This record gives sequence, structure tokens and C-alpha cells, in this order.
Amino acid sequence: MTSKKLVNTVAGCADEALAGLVACNPSLQLLHGHRVALRSDLESLKGRVALLSGGGSGHEPAHAGFIGKGMLTGVIAGAVFTSPAVGSILAAIRAVAQAGTVGTLLIVKNYTGDRLNFGLAREQARAEGIPVEMVVIGDDSAFTVLKKVGRRGLCGTVLIHKVAGALAEAGVGLEEIINRVSAVAKAMGTLGVSLSSCSIPGSRPTFELSPDEVELGLGIHGEAGVRRIKMASANEIVTLMLDHMTASSNVSRVPVQSGSSVVLMVNNLGGLSFLELGIIADAAVRTLEGRGVKIARALVGTFMSALEMPGISLTLLLVDEPLLKLIDAETTASAWPNVAKVSVTGRKRSRAAPAEPLEAPVSTVAGGLTSKRVMLVLERVCTTLLGLEEHLNALDRAAGDGDCGTTHSRAARAIHGWLKEGPPPASPAQLLSKLSLLLLEKMGGSSGALYGLFLTAAAQPLKAKTDLPAWCAAMDAGLEAMQKYGKAAPGDRTMLDSLWAAGQELQAWKSPGANLFQVLTKAVQSAEAAAEATKNMEAGAGRASYISSARLDQPDPGAVAAAAILRAILEALQGQGV
Amino acid sequence: MTSKKLVNTVAGCADEALAGLVACNPSLQLLHGHRVALRSDLESLKGRVALLSGGGSGHEPAHAGFIGKGMLTGVIAGAVFTSPAVGSILAAIRAVAQAGTVGTLLIVKNYTGDRLNFGLAREQARAEGIPVEMVVIGDDSAFTVLKKVGRRGLCGTVLIHKVAGALAEAGVGLEEIINRVSAVAKAMGTLGVSLSSCSIPGSRPTFELSPDEVELGLGIHGEAGVRRIKMASANEIVTLMLDHMTASSNVSRVPVQSGSSVVLMVNNLGGLSFLELGIIADAAVRTLEGRGVKIARALVGTFMSALEMPGISLTLLLVDEPLLKLIDAETTASAWPNVAKVSVTGRKRSRAAPAEPLEAPVSTVAGGLTSKRVMLVLERVCTTLLGLEEHLNALDRAAGDGDCGTTHSRAARAIHGWLKEGPPPASPAQLLSKLSLLLLEKMGGSSGALYGLFLTAAAQPLKAKTDLPAWCAAMDAGLEAMQKYGKAAPGDRTMLDSLWAAGQELQAWKSPGANLFQVLTKAVQSAEAAAEATKNMEAGAGRASYISSARLDQPDPGAVAAAAILRAILEALQGQGV
Repeated sequence: MTSKKLVNTVAGCADEALAGLVACNPSLQLLHGHRVALRSDLESLKGRVALLSGGGSGHEPAHAGFIGKGMLTGVIAGAVFTSPAVGSILAAIRAVAQAGTVGTLLIVKNYTGDRLNFGLAREQARAEGIPVEMVVIGDDSAFTVLKKVGRRGLCGTVLIHKVAGALAEAGVGLEEIINRVSAVAKAMGTLGVSLSSCSIPGSRPTFELSPDEVELGLGIHGEAGVRRIKMASANEIVTLMLDHMTASSNVSRVPVQSGSSVVLMVNNLGGLSFLELGIIADAAVRTLEGRGVKIARALVGTFMSALEMPGISLTLLLVDEPLLKLIDAETTASAWPNVAKVSVTGRKRSRAAPAEPLEAPVSTVAGGLTSKRVMLVLERVCTTLLGLEEHLNALDRAAGDGDCGTTHSRAARAIHGWLKEGPPPASPAQLLSKLSLLLLEKMGGSSGALYGLFLTAAAQPLKAKTDLPAWCAAMDAGLEAMQKYGKAAPGDRTMLDSLWAAGQELQAWKSPGANLFQVLTKAVQSAEAAAEATKNMEAGAGRASYISSARLDQPDPGAVAAAAILRAILEALQGQGV
Repeated sequence: MTSKKLVNTVAGCADEALAGLVACNPSLQLLHGHRVALRSDLESLKGRVALLSGGGSGHEPAHAGFIGKGMLTGVIAGAVFTSPAVGSILAAIRAVAQAGTVGTLLIVKNYTGDRLNFGLAREQARAEGIPVEMVVIGDDSAFTVLKKVGRRGLCGTVLIHKVAGALAEAGVGLEEIINRVSAVAKAMGTLGVSLSSCSIPGSRPTFELSPDEVELGLGIHGEAGVRRIKMASANEIVTLMLDHMTASSNVSRVPVQSGSSVVLMVNNLGGLSFLELGIIADAAVRTLEGRGVKIARALVGTFMSALEMPGISLTLLLVDEPLLKLIDAETTASAWPNVAKVSVTGRKRSRAAPAEPLEAPVSTVAGGLTSKRVMLVLERVCTTLLGLEEHLNALDRAAGDGDCGTTHSRAARAIHGWLKEGPPPASPAQLLSKLSLLLLEKMGGSSGALYGLFLTAAAQPLKAKTDLPAWCAAMDAGLEAMQKYGKAAPGDRTMLDSLWAAGQELQAWKSPGANLFQVLTKAVQSAEAAAEATKNMEAGAGRASYISSARLDQPDPGAVAAAAILRAILEALQGQGV
């Protein structure tokens, strides 16, 4: 069974992927008849050195994503994981030469096929009189014993593109660019790790890993690595990787030690989540800094992938100030990230939490209310909700997840606990604000958020006045916030139905001489009727909206709870003879 | 079985991912005690509008990757796929207010939890006297019938960050920013498709798809989409997506039609290869342009992911020139790509292939050679190789893949065919160059490339002179190129061993009065001895280097073939009595 891929034909993958990248980047052009992408402003490079790179496809955004002012002049792409054709490499060399560049540097990753094909094109171009040089990049730090063929070219090659690109852009000559990048190439190392393999379009995965294994030191062609290790935490894996790639016993090590200054690249090999990439970046920064290494710049992203391989590579490059200037130089290459020109190590990574507003002292007597009365009302509300727990859960089981009563009881217990801590504020605005925070924190879920919203908004009109019109305005403000952020409207079979019905009746409080209890009694009755009426409603919002209306023949528990709270308030106030 | 992840703890994922991003980006800071990232230069925003966004983690690089000058001021991150805490949102609002900004806009993706929590924080901040407004973004074009809760917020939200960021950077006021982005939000649509699901750390995949199915219209939380379709080609899937998201019967459509000008986003949902992303981008550009739509800008990359989901989303935003200016405005946000400020549609996407150098007319008589003699030598070489086919294959079976004889026979038949087309050039430089191209094209594999390299390099010294010292220099140049690009050295059990031994003897040609046949005879004998000696060598390069030396007790077939070619040349020349 071959892997599922979003492609048209296996044979056309490399062509179409490059065509797509060029189509979306008007700074690039294809070279007719070849799988070659070049800067579209080639003619602006007269008198400068041209930089060509490339290799097999499947490493996107490498290499075409690194074409641009200050990076590559062009790339030649092979089929997936296959070296490019000599004829296309030669065509690219001729094209940049004919545009008036004064010499070409081929930047080649160290693989036999790439060395031979780029080498051949170079020899042919030289036979035509075109000055072409070639650097072969091997940054792999996986093999502790050096192989005759040398280290493989991996993600560090992108840093060579950057350095060479900055030099070429500055008008530096071919020979000096070679000298500089050859020195840079010796000062870096890359190591990969992956949770699984990748698969070439039309093929199966190139290797298999068991669920508790991780492949260490792999390349970028789905080939297996140097060894398999047991699955471990991100911290442990990063530590192991950094140990391996800097160990003095490793001939392919990058000689990083305490006091070294480095550029760190955290490269997604393709299919890892960026969440995990961030966790790895965090571990890498912590571990390196813990060893006294100064991280001058850190690049996190997908630079040199191996199709959809779910893994990462870490690259370390030893840097000094002149080299950093080249890393920092401007480029228009689409896949080079925006990097701040500031050292990573030594920066303050957090700022102090903001000052919290001063709280007004809690008043225990305000606007006709006292803390004692408030406490009696809240206790009545709590007792009511605790008594309804089973009933609300049963109603909720028919339409939701059956926890509506539990949620409201949790709120009731939270209020009970809070009342034990001291007298509640008698100022209505303070009271509602405090209750809002309490429910938000302790009640939880959407109900907690909706009650929190209602109470926060309702508190505002009560800051200035606490007469009956102000209480009506508070109800209006709470209902408005609930509708605005919760997106439920009356008739949607939610707690809003009861509250909205009550709110309609409370409008009477705005009239001069309105009676507290008369109006409130009507409001409670109206709320109860509205709660009962939700029986026949189709759910328009909230969890119950996922259930077809045919299955709903009980009232909405949220609406029932809201009506019960209103009745508890009414009865508690009446009992106190306010 | 939960999915394999590079994490430390499930609970710490969101914190560490954000910490890693902030650690690697010195332009950001965490807000102490909260999962909040803010610009580290907050104080430079005095008098400007602050822009805050955020939501659940798992969408990286959204949202923290879009913090920077010209984009967001800060973000608040929740746990994976979970709305952020109200307290943290409020803390972020307070922090930007205390830094001297004149108002804050919350840019919220349309999900109930985000609306409620950002809404609550907004109400609380307003109660503290901080001017805070909120826009809720819904760009999902999946649902053809509008749901009460509206369209989900998807990748298009990133464009809102960009537009609002450019306006805030330009000093535009809060109200005007809201008006502008509200209009922009109505002019866009996004649709997702995926080959498979993703999994929250510590959990299983959120849905299952069979190998021949694709999920259409999914969100960014691993939730299932609007329907499943049969696996199809990239072109077909893109066509289906664009049809769906622009259909007049779709109430959530983006009204794109012939003549419309759009920004296109091709977003990797996380785990798709960038190769496939390029193929999708190519299909999207072709399909849209085929419908007469002008693509003003195209953004291809990972912007708003759903962990490691192997899928994509397409976003279309209708644009005019003023809006494009905002899209093009500078930003330092790390995850915003380098985009050329040039229209995608209407640009020339390829340039003409370079001119090929004029070939010198083929001379049939040159430097003592004639085409006739060349033909006799080449025919002898071909006959020899064809006769050795089975022997070379047998030698190769012991150490490689058993095709060495086949490869050399293919070369011989190619040369035979070429000789039938007309007389070969008598000029040695021309001859070797032509043979190089022929072998490169027809022989194939590493052998073809290595012979091609040898001949190309060897041809160069023969351009100026064709005396014996020049032929010795040609051999030297060929050997050097072979070693340089092939990375084999004498003693590595390759074809180089025979050729190098011969080359040592040919040095005698450099002495005045050296004898052609005496020296050449010694060279052939030396080559044959060297070929035989490879029997005892450990393979240091080439395919045989993967086999342990204990298993190698036959000479290397490449070395045998090279020695045989040299003997064929010697005997053919002797037979002609040169």
C-alpha cells in the first residue's frame, strides 16, 4: 500500500512543486525546458558572482525558497530524492553567465550523485570558458567515525546559502566567497531525529519504527540513521543530540563549548507539529545556555525537509561578529525567516505582570442593602441550586452531557465557601463583580463564563446608582453581553430564555413609582414560563444544538436553573421584608 | 495507544512551545505568570492602538509568530485546542494599556470559548476604564447553510492580523481599524481538506479516515469536516475546493468571480510535505487564473496549523489597491513570509533557455588521427565490452547489484549507434567531449557520470595540443576530476585503481622522445595488475563499500572494465600501425 498524497502524478511531483513555488513568487522564473528556478532579475547581477544550488526534490522549501537578493541566484531540482540532471545544471550555469555574472559558485550537498552531476556540469561549463567553482557541504554530525565519502549535507547548507549570498550581494569575488564559506562549513554540525519515516510519492515508507523507538542521526532522504533509541522526553532527546554532536570523541562534531557563540537552527523535517518544534526549541535553548553556550541567533522553522518526516534537526554554527553580519544581512528569499538582529542569550525573556487596579474597600452597607441581607439571598440561591442538582442533571442527560446540575451545585458550594470567608460586599456593583470572578474560577465551563459575563456587565450600571432603574439597566447590560459573546438569542433554548423573559418584565422598574416586589414577582413568573416553554424549542446554540429537536421534549436545564435562581432571590427578599 | 510526540509532559506542552518561540525571538517577551507573549518594545507603542489575539495552542506559528512591528502587539495562548484563561487575557490587556497604548483591539476567532473568554476579559477591562474593543473573525466557507453561531475562524484570521497591524502601525485609531477589518473579514473565505487527522498530545487521533478518503471542510481542531470525498488528484481536489468556497448556493462563500483580484493563502495544516504544498499551490494558481481571477499576492507556508494534520487550507481574500498596501506593509513578525510586492498573475513565469555555445565543425582529420582510425579504436572497445558483459555482471553480483556488465554493454551499444550516424570527430578534444555527453546520457548511473567526468576533464588539455605530453595531461585531468567529484582514491577498489595505475606509467610521455607504444603497453599491463589487485582491497567508495571486505574475493568489475578498455585501445592502435 503506497502512502496517501496530495499529488497529480508521481512523475510530475517535482515539476509541479517547483512550478507552484515559482508561480506564487513573482521574483522567480523557471528556465524553459529545465527543472530550474532563477531570480527573475538576473540582469541586475551583472558583474556579481552567481550562486547556484539544488539537489533532489522533497526538501522544500530548500532549495528554491532560498532564492532571492542576498541568497541564491538559482536552483536546479532533481526528481524526489534524486540528483538533478547534468544538462539542467549546465543550462542554469549558462543562463547566469549569459546574464553577465562574472563567475558561478555551485553549492552542493555532499551526496555522490550531486557531486558527480554538479561536477560534470561544472567541467562542461569550464570547457565552454565559463568560470565555475564548486563547494561541497557536509555538516552531518551523526557519524562518530569519519567515512571516506565525508559528512552528508544537511540543513546547515542553508546557512551557507545565506553567507555566500550576503557576500555575493556585497560584490565579493568568487575566490574570497569560496574561502569564506569553506571556513564556515567547517564550523558547523547538524543532527536529525525522527519519530517515524517518510515516503516518496508512489512508494511505501522507507523504514519502520516501533511506537517506542526514535531514529537518531538520520539524513534527509528517509534513510535510517545511526541508531535507534528508546522514546524519551523532548528534554532528554535534545540533551542526547547535543551531547552526540559536540562530543570530543565524535570526529564529525561541531566544536561547541562553554563560551562559544552559535547560530542555532531548529529545523522541522516536515511532518512534526510546530507545537513540538517550539518545545524542542525551548529545550535546545535551555540546554545550550545551561552549558554556557551563547546563542547569537536562533532560527526555528521548516528549512530543509525530508518530505513529511515527523522529526527535527538541530544545526549549530560557531559564529563571530563578522559572520553574524552576513547572517543578519537583508534577503528577499521567501523561506528565510524574519530574524531579529539581537542576541538570543542575554535578553530578558519576560516582563513583570501588570499592576492590578486598586480595589475599593468592601462596604457592608450600601443603597439600602446590608451584607447580612446579601448573605441571606445568596444562601437561599445556593440551597435552591443544591436541591435541584439531580433534577437538572436528569434534564441535561436528555440533551447534553448530563452535568448541568453538577455545574450549578459546584457554583453553589463555591458561593457558600466564599460567604464563610467574611461578609459579602453590600455594594451591588462590588457584589456582582466578586460573584463574577468567583463563578468564572469555580463554576467553570460555558455556564461559568456566561454567568461571569452577565454579572460583570450587570455590575457596571450599578456603580453610579442602585435604584430600581439602575437594576433594570444592570439586567439589560447582562443580557446584552450574554447575547453578544454567547451568540444565543431568545428562543434558542438556553438560560437566556428565562433571563430575557424576566428582563422584559423588569423594564417596568424604569417607570417612576414602580413597585419592587410586584414587578419582580411578574418577572419570576415570566422566567418560569419561559423555562417551561423551552420544551418546545429547537436548540440554536450551546451543546444541545447538536441534537435534533425531535429528541428534545424536556425544558432546557440552564433555563430552569436561571428561573429558579430568580425565584430564590425574590423569596429571600420577601422573607426579609425589604 | 496515544500518538508519539516530542514533548516533555502533556500538561506542559502549551507553556513550553510558547516559551521556545519567545526564547528564539528576542523581539518577544512572556508576561510573568501568564501564557502571554508580547512585543518586547511595548513602550514604543505609546499613543498607538494595541492588537491582541490568541486562542488555543496547537495552531503554531499562529498566533505568537505574528507578533511584531506591523502585526500583533501580543497573544494569549490557551492549552492545546482550548480557549485561553480570562485572567491571562485581562493581564495582557492591562499590560499593553499600562505601556501607554490608547486602546486595544481583541482579534478573536469565532469559537464559543474564545468569544466568551475574550468577551469576559474585555468587560472586566472596560469596568477598569480601559478602552477595549473586539472583532470576531469567521472566515470558514465550509458550511453552505449558515449556522447560528456563524462561520469558524480559520487561517484568514492571519490576514486580519496583518491588515489591523499595518493600520495600527500607521497610527490609525481604534474605531477606524475596527471598521476596516470588519469589511475585510467579510471579503474572505477559507476551506480545509486533509488526508488524515491529528492528535492532541496524550490522546489518540481525533477521527479516522480510510486510505481512499479525504476530509473536506474541516476546522483546525482535528474536528471532522462537512463531508468525506474519495481520494482524488491534487487538481481535482483543488477544483472541488474552489467550487465549494465560491459557489453562489453557499451562504458562507467568498464572492470571487472572473475579474476579481485576490490574495491567495495556501496554508499547511501541519503535517503535509512542502512538496505537496507546492503542487497544491500550482493547482490553485492555475485553476483560479483559468477562471479569470487575478492573483495579486500568494502566500504559501504554515500559518495556522492544526498540530500535525496532513492537509491544507485555501484562503481567498478579495483585494483592492489600498488593501494590498496594507498586506504589503513591512512587518517584523517572524512567521510572516517574505512576499514580493508584485502581482502574481501577469508575470512571466519562465525565461528562455540559454543559448548553447556554437559547436566547432567536426574535423575528420586532426593531429595524426583520422575519423577512420578513431572509429576502429572505438569499435574494438565496444566489442571488448560486449564480450565482457556476463563476466562483469558475475563479478558485480558478489559485491554490488550485478549490473556492471549490463551498464558497460549499454555504453558500447550507444557508441555503436553513434558511430553509425556519421564519422566521429578526429579532434581528440571534440571526440572526448562528444563521448562524455553520449555516456552521460546513455550509460547512466554513477559509472556514466564518472566516465563522463573523466572524458570532459580529459578533453580540456587536448584543445591546445595533441602531442604525447598533452595526452598525459588529459589522463591527469580526467583522474583528478574523477577523484575530486567521486571522492574515491587509489586503493578504494574502484575503476580508478586501473586508470590511476595506467596514469602513473603515462607520465613517461612527458619526457622528450618518449615512445607511444612502449609506454602505453606498460600502462595497460599496470592497469591490469591493478585491477587484479583490487581482489584484496576493502571497498572505500561506491556501492561495494557497504559490503564487508571478508565477502570480497574477486576483483572489482569497474576496475576490470577500465583495464580492458585500455587494452582494447592499445591493440586497436597497434593493429593500425600508428
